[in-house]
Amino acid sequence: MNARGRFISMEGPEGSGKTTQCARLARRLLAAGREVVALREPGGTPLGEAIRSLLQHDAAGERMAPEAETLLFLASRAHLSGQVVRPALERGAWVVCDRFFDSTIAYQGFGRGCDVEEVIRVNEFAVGGLRPDLTVLLDIDVAAGFDRLAGRNASAGTGNDRFEREDRGFHERVRAGYLELARRWPERIWTIDGSRNADALERDIWSRVAHEFGI
Amino acid sequence: MNARGRFISMEGPEGSGKTTQCARLARRLLAAGREVVALREPGGTPLGEAIRSLLQHDAAGERMAPEAETLLFLASRAHLSGQVVRPALERGAWVVCDRFFDSTIAYQGFGRGCDVEEVIRVNEFAVGGLRPDLTVLLDIDVAAGFDRLAGRNASAGTGNDRFEREDRGFHERVRAGYLELARRWPERIWTIDGSRNADALERDIWSRVAHEFGI
Repeated sequence: MNARGRFISMEGPEGSGKTTQCARLARRLLAAGREVVALREPGGTPLGEAIRSLLQHDAAGERMAPEAETLLFLASRAHLSGQVVRPALERGAWVVCDRFFDSTIAYQGFGRGCDVEEVIRVNEFAVGGLRPDLTVLLDIDVAAGFDRLAGRNASAGTGNDRFEREDRGFHERVRAGYLELARRWPERIWTIDGSRNADALERDIWSRVAHEFGI
Repeated sequence: MNARGRFISMEGPEGSGKTTQCARLARRLLAAGREVVALREPGGTPLGEAIRSLLQHDAAGERMAPEAETLLFLASRAHLSGQVVRPALERGAWVVCDRFFDSTIAYQGFGRGCDVEEVIRVNEFAVGGLRPDLTVLLDIDVAAGFDRLAGRNASAGTGNDRFEREDRGFHERVRAGYLELARRWPERIWTIDGSRNADALERDIWSRVAHEFGI
């Protein structure tokens, strides 16, 4: 039997660089000889990708109740946890996930105004005790994150999705919510300044991961 | 301002005649001059129908974690409650719904083995206090229900969906779960023998509804 693997999630507001840092951390872990499963949320499975598409693009053309949005994210998470994350950890793989437990609390709880403690409980129903061993919170000023996002969308030729189109106040509440979660669970959530350049962030994250998990 | 409308849900195991009785009750209410909104769950909205299709036909071809299944049903319910049921009741309409709050507890709680009290809590997050004024539970022996279902599918030329293909034990747990809910909430859930013929059921249901709500 292998030892249980490790589970690292990356969180942060829009434009904080999560997706880039997930890819770089996965590459470092692979280079260190680990089996790596890199995932994104919502998504990561065919069912999850179908849910992602409902969530991001208002596929049905309707305004969605905040509780419905929350429950769709959690359905995707429950499926990903049971079908992918737990089996990977059990066989000793490292799981790197672009968003996990905390995004729903930050976005649907603090951002949309669903009751935060209720969102945490329903989240717990979805994952049944599964938590990342380490969550890297890439904190960034909302305006700076959106500048970064605008550059990315311009070079990719894409527009903003439903979340990116939310107003400034929404994103300020999300960021403040993340920082509150970091104070609530300091043993799991590590906050770093996401406004720095990607190479510096990669080095710092790798240094922390390598030290914490003895690589 | 109109008075608030009334909300009636129809529940029961497969083949219990819910769908037929929903349609007949809606017709009777219309004939009595009421505005009627007839719905089915999951579904009732474009988003809900997209979720229904994911749930019923394993669209993504994956085995689904029971918690993911529960959360998808509840996402559909949260959306239906917020976008359709509450606005209809507020304008004084009568809402007749083929399945609502209790199905998830019976199927995913008692049937699939998710923790029943947790399912009730998450259900409560989805609907936020909204409950039917009356729930008609059409109770039927599992074997008799499946005989009825086989006849219906044969004449429609369709096969069984994912739930109908579950084993006998699953459906026995669902039925027993429904009966337990009727004991728990006797002021809301009215159990009747669903094995009787559709005309007799229609008369009894109408008599109860007309009496209880003063039509």
